[in-house]
Amino acid sequence: MRRLINDGYDVVEEMLAGYVAANSEYATLLPDEGRVVISKKISEEPRVRIIIGGGSGHEPLFLGYVGENFADAAVIGNINTSPSPEPCYKAVKAVDSGKGCLYLYGNYAGDVLNFDMGAELAADEGIRVETVTVKDDVISSENFEDRRGVAGDVFVFKVAASAAAKGYDLEKVKEIAEFANANTFSMGVALSSATLPVTGKEIFEMKDGDMEVGMGIHGEPGIRREKIRPADEVVAEIYNYLKEHTDLTSGDEVAVLVNGLGGLPVMDQYVCYRKLDELLVADHIKVHKSLVGNYATSMDMVGMSITLMRVNDELKELLDSHCDTPYYKQ
Amino acid sequence: MRRLINDGYDVVEEMLAGYVAANSEYATLLPDEGRVVISKKISEEPRVRIIIGGGSGHEPLFLGYVGENFADAAVIGNINTSPSPEPCYKAVKAVDSGKGCLYLYGNYAGDVLNFDMGAELAADEGIRVETVTVKDDVISSENFEDRRGVAGDVFVFKVAASAAAKGYDLEKVKEIAEFANANTFSMGVALSSATLPVTGKEIFEMKDGDMEVGMGIHGEPGIRREKIRPADEVVAEIYNYLKEHTDLTSGDEVAVLVNGLGGLPVMDQYVCYRKLDELLVADHIKVHKSLVGNYATSMDMVGMSITLMRVNDELKELLDSHCDTPYYKQ
Repeated sequence: MRRLINDGYDVVEEMLAGYVAANSEYATLLPDEGRVVISKKISEEPRVRIIIGGGSGHEPLFLGYVGENFADAAVIGNINTSPSPEPCYKAVKAVDSGKGCLYLYGNYAGDVLNFDMGAELAADEGIRVETVTVKDDVISSENFEDRRGVAGDVFVFKVAASAAAKGYDLEKVKEIAEFANANTFSMGVALSSATLPVTGKEIFEMKDGDMEVGMGIHGEPGIRREKIRPADEVVAEIYNYLKEHTDLTSGDEVAVLVNGLGGLPVMDQYVCYRKLDELLVADHIKVHKSLVGNYATSMDMVGMSITLMRVNDELKELLDSHCDTPYYKQ
Repeated sequence: MRRLINDGYDVVEEMLAGYVAANSEYATLLPDEGRVVISKKISEEPRVRIIIGGGSGHEPLFLGYVGENFADAAVIGNINTSPSPEPCYKAVKAVDSGKGCLYLYGNYAGDVLNFDMGAELAADEGIRVETVTVKDDVISSENFEDRRGVAGDVFVFKVAASAAAKGYDLEKVKEIAEFANANTFSMGVALSSATLPVTGKEIFEMKDGDMEVGMGIHGEPGIRREKIRPADEVVAEIYNYLKEHTDLTSGDEVAVLVNGLGGLPVMDQYVCYRKLDELLVADHIKVHKSLVGNYATSMDMVGMSITLMRVNDELKELLDSHCDTPYYKQ
């Protein structure tokens, strides 16, 4: 195991303690609830509040995006495990300003179950909570409703948070988040497994030199395992798959995220971006915004995903608006 | 090899092409010189220009810090290899505004040789270039002048760039950079080697489960190889070493960087920060600013370094001032 931790059972609590100590200007833990990270930069205006969350191990997702004009709270689960209903509910109680809250998280059964229970607890007290589950992992299902959420989370969260920051009501913020969600498409490859802190073992076996095309961020199986191929071929396969399995087409304008899964050098991420940019230009798909980096990881997994979000004027404006969090500033 | 690249010999050029495509708002390559990244946000005022650089493989160092009120140019070498004198000189020619330039880079013999030759070429044309080599890696020598530069680069660069942005003259910018340099102390550990793109092999052998205390960012030997220990023990050893081998003392105020070397999860970085914060608090050393993330890497090396920069009021103001680059925004 190549991890620098203490007892594997303490890793989430210790990470959270470190996080709020290092980023005390931005965030704090909700008192008496160690699994809710609350923004210290919540607008004084009553607005729709944005609550994101999910299992740990994807840092800087989710806690790194709590701050000004982005998430107002993040609910934190154990490694690759949904948070419980109680912190989901307490996050709502802590941040609601009478305008309701929007839960935003990746589409996984455990998260849906627990966030829904959190919303019910809030409803019992008359607080409105709506939900949008991000479904950008195109390879996970032909059916949009069944798709998992991966790095596309970042774009959908950003757009929804900017809409809330503009003072839109809950219906409108939800509608925008759903529109962004329906226009966000991702696919990734993994070159290694992540290492679980408690067992010290890899989640699944992956020989050095092998690659799994289409793997999910928790190690969900992809479509094919093979020898690692040149970056240009891998990028072209992902790009072509995204084009074939969505309605993305020439003439579209997109926001792009080349996302490192944790162990892939920034150098390689830019080698990949170079090819992706070349393919987009050739297809007359215009890049409005591009991000390259470790935005949604799987701990030490070596791998990369590409996210394309088709943008219109409204999404562009929301993507471009000011926000300030430890891992997303503009 | 778990890398996602094409031909290993093309990796730096492909990375640079990807970088300027993805960050076209911030930077471009100098025409006819593929190894100089120039800021697109250079002040219109004549000011001292900040030129950073060194070998590739440490991304986002150096190119990621080219932008507004930070580096005006970065000169890019091959993997773990100094840039040639020619691009060092051309960077000066491209950005000088009559106020002179400051070269800032880590203290390695090859870099010193080549940047010095670049400065001589510039001097032949009457352009003043001064140099500060960063020497923060405390374990690399008892003698300050012989120390290597590692993640402390980031703080020294930031402070010098802020001084240039304030319109200070070259003497003053250099003096501030030297003061910051003398007050910046780092030490790291490695849990794996980095993988060289051309050979596809690790730079040195490191068994899974082993750790080298004090290793440099190119794989320079440290002081001891042993089994990986709990994060708290590793952090305490680094912190105590930094305190014992520098004049850092209780009552000081510091900027802190817990830097991931490439393959270490953000989760683990915060587990480490938690312990460091606890030790600093116990010793009455006040944290003015804290950064946690992959700021100066060694490609896919799993490891971590801690940097402490002692700050006074002037350094605090310079550290806190506005800048905007792809990997350092505030």
